[in-house]
Amino acid sequence: MINQSIQLYPNKPGVTLTTYVLEDSPELLAGKTRPAVVICPGGAYLNCSDREAEPVALRFASMGYHAFVLRYSTHSGNESAFDIPAGDLPVNPDSVYPAPLRDIGKAFLLIREKAPEWLVDIDRIAICGFSAGAHNCAMYAVYWQDPVMSEHFGEKPEAFRPAAAILGYGIGDYNLMFGDSDDPMAKVLADASSIAYMGTKTPDQALLDQVSPALHVTQSAPPMFIWATGGDSLVPVENSTRMANACAAAGVPFEAHIFEVGPHGLSLSDQSTSASKMENIQDVAVWIPLVERWLLKRLALPLLDKPFWMEMAERQQACDQD
Amino acid sequence: MINQSIQLYPNKPGVTLTTYVLEDSPELLAGKTRPAVVICPGGAYLNCSDREAEPVALRFASMGYHAFVLRYSTHSGNESAFDIPAGDLPVNPDSVYPAPLRDIGKAFLLIREKAPEWLVDIDRIAICGFSAGAHNCAMYAVYWQDPVMSEHFGEKPEAFRPAAAILGYGIGDYNLMFGDSDDPMAKVLADASSIAYMGTKTPDQALLDQVSPALHVTQSAPPMFIWATGGDSLVPVENSTRMANACAAAGVPFEAHIFEVGPHGLSLSDQSTSASKMENIQDVAVWIPLVERWLLKRLALPLLDKPFWMEMAERQQACDQD
Repeated sequence: MINQSIQLYPNKPGVTLTTYVLEDSPELLAGKTRPAVVICPGGAYLNCSDREAEPVALRFASMGYHAFVLRYSTHSGNESAFDIPAGDLPVNPDSVYPAPLRDIGKAFLLIREKAPEWLVDIDRIAICGFSAGAHNCAMYAVYWQDPVMSEHFGEKPEAFRPAAAILGYGIGDYNLMFGDSDDPMAKVLADASSIAYMGTKTPDQALLDQVSPALHVTQSAPPMFIWATGGDSLVPVENSTRMANACAAAGVPFEAHIFEVGPHGLSLSDQSTSASKMENIQDVAVWIPLVERWLLKRLALPLLDKPFWMEMAERQQACDQD
Repeated sequence: MINQSIQLYPNKPGVTLTTYVLEDSPELLAGKTRPAVVICPGGAYLNCSDREAEPVALRFASMGYHAFVLRYSTHSGNESAFDIPAGDLPVNPDSVYPAPLRDIGKAFLLIREKAPEWLVDIDRIAICGFSAGAHNCAMYAVYWQDPVMSEHFGEKPEAFRPAAAILGYGIGDYNLMFGDSDDPMAKVLADASSIAYMGTKTPDQALLDQVSPALHVTQSAPPMFIWATGGDSLVPVENSTRMANACAAAGVPFEAHIFEVGPHGLSLSDQSTSASKMENIQDVAVWIPLVERWLLKRLALPLLDKPFWMEMAERQQACDQD
């Protein structure tokens, strides 16, 4: 495996792409390229959570895909641990839209550039995010072909096309984030996250709509796998159902799973991503076998029909009969 | 992740321990140690198969365990790809018993030494092997406390105690390996493997018995998870059923799964370990969720009962009420 952390910009030490690039072998793909999954952890655009980073990358890597953790631009610059903010945050222009969105584009360009060395199938790069990371991925899914990306980088839109988007308990419609919630953390986090991502805790309607991916789903969006838990008191589950609605309306292939029970932020919902047993809910952990099957529809590895030794034996036999 | 390949001896460049040591975080185990799984790939003691190496390590790593691939001593020194031998192999003293067995002991000592840095729970290190690698692990399971290990290394037997052994289509009783098989490869491989591991293709009965772990299972053996496929024409499935018998007789906890269909050498039996679709049998792939549950009985991570922020909030509340 090639496991390294690559800084995306000289002046942003915390914005990195960490590679989990699988070793090939004559016994495996023998030089053929593999699809990849780029993972955006959550953290309310304040930081990038470790619970949604390496363990998730390893789970996708263990399915046979190259995996990458993208620590995109956040308010903390990913250099301090998450802390509940006291009072209003100062604005950090580094983390304001479209910076985090463009980070995904930057990661795509880097992966394309290194693809010959890493053996990446550049036409089959999926994105997978959680919470704010899922919002960032959903934004990418609807804006990858927009001038916000191609003009900024001076590249053809095609270079940014994602093959699929996997969205876990993400923000689909920012208009839903300023409602009433019984959870006192909800307002604190929504405010802090808005300052981090929009530069204000009172965004106007035009900005709110612009950064609400559920309002922008078109045919050019990739297939989506959407999941959330009904007990989420931080990001209302309607964010996910609206994304599903938008996919259905636009004719974008999608699969959606809303689990009845479970709080926000379960990640893989097993011990590998948990600090406590309460983050470890078996009913929810099935999203991983579900997404594994879903990915096989579009990211399946280019396997031979038969093992090479069987092929050789059959050719030899045919030769002997001549 | 700490991913590095460590040479175990100065004079054996191909005998290595490759680490897949997980990154800890204040959001995960916050400094507590984790159990580990040491993986021994198969390859008839001729080489170590890549199909049973990194992808398997990643699957166990994705369960939350540190993983290690041990490329133990083999006839090729792991420096050339597997090739069907033409005629009798010359003896290579480097790969003859007990060298491959002691390599596991050497790996245990190295992991214990690095445990404070890698945060390994040294009392919970499991071993997992396939085919010849499963034989090597089974040998270790029955000989870890034997002078062959402790006297050689000058260490107390306790330093070598494995917490569990996972054995996939392994050789349990070498006496079964010289029978008739419809598969012409079976005899070729059994002969080559015997020369590699025993230094002769005509071992005497005492040696055959000595290297047959199913004949040596006692109470000191660790719990075992044994699996194989009924269609295995290279290592008769009785090797696994005899290991299960021996565990039952000795009162060693075990779980055994013999899948009806499937050839030798399926590894994870999914695309991540396959070169061809024929090595990718869904019925067999369930050994992984089965072993994941089995491992949770003994290797579960030391999770808190509640997330730390909930604990803090409750303490604050209790404080406020005073």
